[in-house]
Amino acid sequence: MLELLGKNAKKAAILLGKAGIEEKNQALLAVADALECKKEYLIEENQKDIEYAKKNHMSEALIDRLAINDSRIKGMAEGIRQVASLEDPIGAVSDMRKRPNGLMIGKKRVPIGVIGIIYESRPNVTADAFSLTFKTGNAVILRGGSDAINSNKAITNVIRETLEGCGVTPDAIQLVTDTSRAIATKMMQMNEYIDVLIPRGGAGLIQSVVKNATVPVIETGTGNCHVYVDKDADLDMAVRIIDNAKTQRLGTCNTCESLVIHKDIVEEAVPVIVSALKAKEIEIRGDKESRNLDSYIIPATEEDWGMEYLDRIISMKIVDDMDEAIAHINRYNTKHSEAIVTENYHNAQKFLNEIDAAAVYVNASTRFTDGFEFGFGAEIGISTQKIHARGPMGLEALTTTKFIIYGDGQIRG
Amino acid sequence: MLELLGKNAKKAAILLGKAGIEEKNQALLAVADALECKKEYLIEENQKDIEYAKKNHMSEALIDRLAINDSRIKGMAEGIRQVASLEDPIGAVSDMRKRPNGLMIGKKRVPIGVIGIIYESRPNVTADAFSLTFKTGNAVILRGGSDAINSNKAITNVIRETLEGCGVTPDAIQLVTDTSRAIATKMMQMNEYIDVLIPRGGAGLIQSVVKNATVPVIETGTGNCHVYVDKDADLDMAVRIIDNAKTQRLGTCNTCESLVIHKDIVEEAVPVIVSALKAKEIEIRGDKESRNLDSYIIPATEEDWGMEYLDRIISMKIVDDMDEAIAHINRYNTKHSEAIVTENYHNAQKFLNEIDAAAVYVNASTRFTDGFEFGFGAEIGISTQKIHARGPMGLEALTTTKFIIYGDGQIRG
Repeated sequence: MLELLGKNAKKAAILLGKAGIEEKNQALLAVADALECKKEYLIEENQKDIEYAKKNHMSEALIDRLAINDSRIKGMAEGIRQVASLEDPIGAVSDMRKRPNGLMIGKKRVPIGVIGIIYESRPNVTADAFSLTFKTGNAVILRGGSDAINSNKAITNVIRETLEGCGVTPDAIQLVTDTSRAIATKMMQMNEYIDVLIPRGGAGLIQSVVKNATVPVIETGTGNCHVYVDKDADLDMAVRIIDNAKTQRLGTCNTCESLVIHKDIVEEAVPVIVSALKAKEIEIRGDKESRNLDSYIIPATEEDWGMEYLDRIISMKIVDDMDEAIAHINRYNTKHSEAIVTENYHNAQKFLNEIDAAAVYVNASTRFTDGFEFGFGAEIGISTQKIHARGPMGLEALTTTKFIIYGDGQIRG
Repeated sequence: MLELLGKNAKKAAILLGKAGIEEKNQALLAVADALECKKEYLIEENQKDIEYAKKNHMSEALIDRLAINDSRIKGMAEGIRQVASLEDPIGAVSDMRKRPNGLMIGKKRVPIGVIGIIYESRPNVTADAFSLTFKTGNAVILRGGSDAINSNKAITNVIRETLEGCGVTPDAIQLVTDTSRAIATKMMQMNEYIDVLIPRGGAGLIQSVVKNATVPVIETGTGNCHVYVDKDADLDMAVRIIDNAKTQRLGTCNTCESLVIHKDIVEEAVPVIVSALKAKEIEIRGDKESRNLDSYIIPATEEDWGMEYLDRIISMKIVDDMDEAIAHINRYNTKHSEAIVTENYHNAQKFLNEIDAAAVYVNASTRFTDGFEFGFGAEIGISTQKIHARGPMGLEALTTTKFIIYGDGQIRG
């Protein structure tokens, strides 16, 4: 079954690689309209997943990830329209130059081919992934989690029907409906049919893909993001940023999970930070130094420094100086998003230079690490690895280049 | 032992990431001089490998790959000097723009960190790999083949001594001296210490790395490269290009291994091509149609269409039209380098558009796919995968970016 999807995808990729941008944009706009038109159907199917999740006592944060409602459908459709309005990166030739022997060598941007996406929970990924892979001339094979299977099927059905209505191959998007682990593992090793695999989900899923895949992987998304409050921080700003980074949405990978605070500012900073987080019912797990300052803070274990809670919990660590802060963050972070709050020019630059992460912020919330917020029109995921793409991935991350060379009989001497 | 190399490399990478470009360039120039100064030592050590290879009846092509002589040492040194003269890509910030909320978001080019290279035979890879990884602020862990162990140790020794003399950490380059398979496999799974793995060698080595690695891999180099002689080819040019692409050097991945010829031109083309290849003692394995034209051609099996011979053998296939040629090449090629010989504008453009390979040529030899020939100053390998880098990889392929974001208190609404 999976091999058939692979073959279909390869055929679709050849057709999509030749499709014109007008044809692709019209299909995208039709899909956006169709998702809004069929919102009752989508919400109805999503309801099956939500009920199942509640029955299984899934956490509040995870149910929030799973839910489809009017505004999220509007978000999906708007995301697709935004992608349709973006410039087509495919076909552009850059860096064309003449070598001393007369060869003209340039780089042409082309689709990758077939992209596999293995994801959990959030059904809006289905629509996002389709719009970006389709716009860039790729075929996509999606394998969502069992939690969202009804929602994913419904979204895929609407997209495939719409494509067919537009005279475009529906195999541009295919969903693996068998959500077993064995099938997922098989998909990770389909080197013959899949050019790149993008996992989106929790640490367990991502580690399983990294470990089992023989297809090239773009590692995405677990986020143990830190906010570092420097000795020269504006404390009001620090509290606003921490509150936003932790509580604006609990279940996302750019949510702040860890606080690091300079010792020179703890006496003023800790009480106001604790008070803000306490008001939002956030549990704080801190080191000994922080617990000495506020009895609301409970002990952190070594494990807490590396945790992505996705829940009403945060860790707190007091450091002696900026080097300790940087070393602590680089040791325990997941290379996702890190922020410093400071009014000190030198410390801001040092943080930007020395922190090893996909996105490094001065005086802003880590919650901005997102394709829409970065102006990409949507995102296929947030890469936390260092090759191919790093940080929020938009259109360009879904393309590759080939060298094209114009000669007039050159041979190598 | 390997873990110690990993730890040393990580420490070295932090130092190299902060090193200035002057410091790096001076060390590179010192290394280039040292390799030339110590050429007797290098050739002496290389001779041990050559003698061992001869004793083991290694093929002519493989012994050619292994050999170090005056001109190859000069080539290594010149390659390093060229790298020293290249602009430093590290630290450049691109695409800095202001979002509507006032956030300033840009992409800063940074080193990848620790790069692992697993390679076979050619000892000049040791010097090339060092120069490019060092210039870009990365630490490198090299694992060469047992065939070249004496040569690789000698080159590494010269480089490490020179770095130490320059006050630079010698752990910028480390060689794994245990050439067992078990150690190679362990290296492929050192996700904690190695950021990216680049295999360079034959199909067996590369497939083993793709299959066993959990560290992200950039797949390089096996080349089943085709020359397609179109019906509208200039035949003199076709013969010159085929002769060069096949015989200028037998053992490289951009050597032509397969010929595809349009049926309308076979009667004139096959005799002259056969005559040129026969003169160089190249065996030709062809399909039935080609064998009917010349008795020098022996039968090809299905396996021949996919072979990288690296030897005095080439395959020949006659096609009915250009679509068959493109389909044949896209089916059997290794996505490396492909060339068309034609005077026809439409066919040239169609070939450039539809062939799926890292480098696609019109009227030139496939032998040009090379970092030096492309003007990169050297190369770390030729990527045949589609993510991160494709084709000859120079400095930029050894870097990544991080987003840096300047805010003034922004939170997400």
